[in-house]
Amino acid sequence: MARLEELAHRLRRFAAARDWEQFHTSKNLAMALAGEVGELLAELQWLTPEQASRVMDEPESAERVRSELADVMIYLTRLADVLGVDLIDAAHAKLDESEDRYPAEIYRGSTRKAPH
Amino acid sequence: MARLEELAHRLRRFAAARDWEQFHTSKNLAMALAGEVGELLAELQWLTPEQASRVMDEPESAERVRSELADVMIYLTRLADVLGVDLIDAAHAKLDESEDRYPAEIYRGSTRKAPH
Amino acid sequence: MARLEELAHRLRRFAAARDWEQFHTSKNLAMALAGEVGELLAELQWLTPEQASRVMDEPESAERVRSELADVMIYLTRLADVLGVDLIDAAHAKLDESEDRYPAEIYRGSTRKAPH
Amino acid sequence: MARLEELAHRLRRFAAARDWEQFHTSKNLAMALAGEVGELLAELQWLTPEQASRVMDEPESAERVRSELADVMIYLTRLADVLGVDLIDAAHAKLDESEDRYPAEIYRGSTRKAPH
Repeated sequence: MARLEELAHRLRRFAAARDWEQFHTSKNLAMALAGEVGELLAELQWLTPEQASRVMDEPESAERVRSELADVMIYLTRLADVLGVDLIDAAHAKLDESEDRYPAEIYRGSTRKAPH
Repeated sequence: MARLEELAHRLRRFAAARDWEQFHTSKNLAMALAGEVGELLAELQWLTPEQASRVMDEPESAERVRSELADVMIYLTRLADVLGVDLIDAAHAKLDESEDRYPAEIYRGSTRKAPH
Repeated sequence: MARLEELAHRLRRFAAARDWEQFHTSKNLAMALAGEVGELLAELQWLTPEQASRVMDEPESAERVRSELADVMIYLTRLADVLGVDLIDAAHAKLDESEDRYPAEIYRGSTRKAPH
Repeated sequence: MARLEELAHRLRRFAAARDWEQFHTSKNLAMALAGEVGELLAELQWLTPEQASRVMDEPESAERVRSELADVMIYLTRLADVLGVDLIDAAHAKLDESEDRYPAEIYRGSTRKAPH
């Protein structure tokens, strides 16, 4: 089985073993996802861009960032599983659109938003 | 190559082709990730729990949710790639810890936080 | 002096006394704001709508929610002060627009978004 | 009446006139608050620190930032009103604690977290 599916299955078993499926509604999981992203931001918020670029060089901060990324990944995978969405297929479909909306030659070095 | 690595590589090429690597610092990507999670929340925020559980049944709302999940996945994958973190390994390491902290028989049906 | 201005002034003195103005850029404060909103969400995420409606009845959860709301208010006030925005004026200006965009008789009981 | 109370009252009337109180549960409003903070982050995410410090100098970006701050303030005020929390009192109570936890002479120029 592919690695992402395996993770989703482990999360299903983890929730089922604790009878936590009742809490794992899409709204609740989306809130939990936002909460974990908040904790990730908190690891980076007071760093200068230079310090932030070296955050993985120091074992302690690296471990905290890795742990927060893990939490975000866990809730995102669980939410997508509950909703029946394949995250990687969905990401590729969105990237197909973005390649159309943002032709490389026009948007090179620019952060403008493409018109909808 | 595994599917998640492939997505990360496509995102690298997408950024490089547009000279967007300069914008893809860890702080900026973490902010973009939070912004996309905010758009995902906006799709669910006014729904009752019952409506939210049926959000994938209606093609239009399903497509919007899928598209927001995709954006979250894209920025999470890109951020982890910039930081050199394997999201799936990190998630499994965190789950190993959670299985210790939350023994199934003690936390069954409970949302209490485990003591640190 | 009005109460909100007083709070902004206290936050200015608090930051100045600690030489923290260097960290209080608009990007950093916006990240901190998002982080605190994440902690607020974490207080509510696993509650049923019924439990969430009673969250202020129990002293312990009431105190946690009040404390997270306080943190959000602190960073929002500080960010607005750094950017030179009067939050209350800005909110009224936005509400003037919303009253135009969402006529009561048309949007009664509806969560549809108004067209832009 | 104080300015913040006046805003809270206007928001109450705005919701009541549209029969939107049914949607304004604490969970839903907290999600909406996070969504608006996400839009605020999106205004700042790709800017360099220097550009972000000048975001209010250019009328168009100033207006967008002001509008997003307004939305955050609106949902924060509405949420606090629904929960019966006085945001300014709560912020001052939290600052009393922070002044104890972060003595100026010890935390000058430092972003370390105080131990709990």
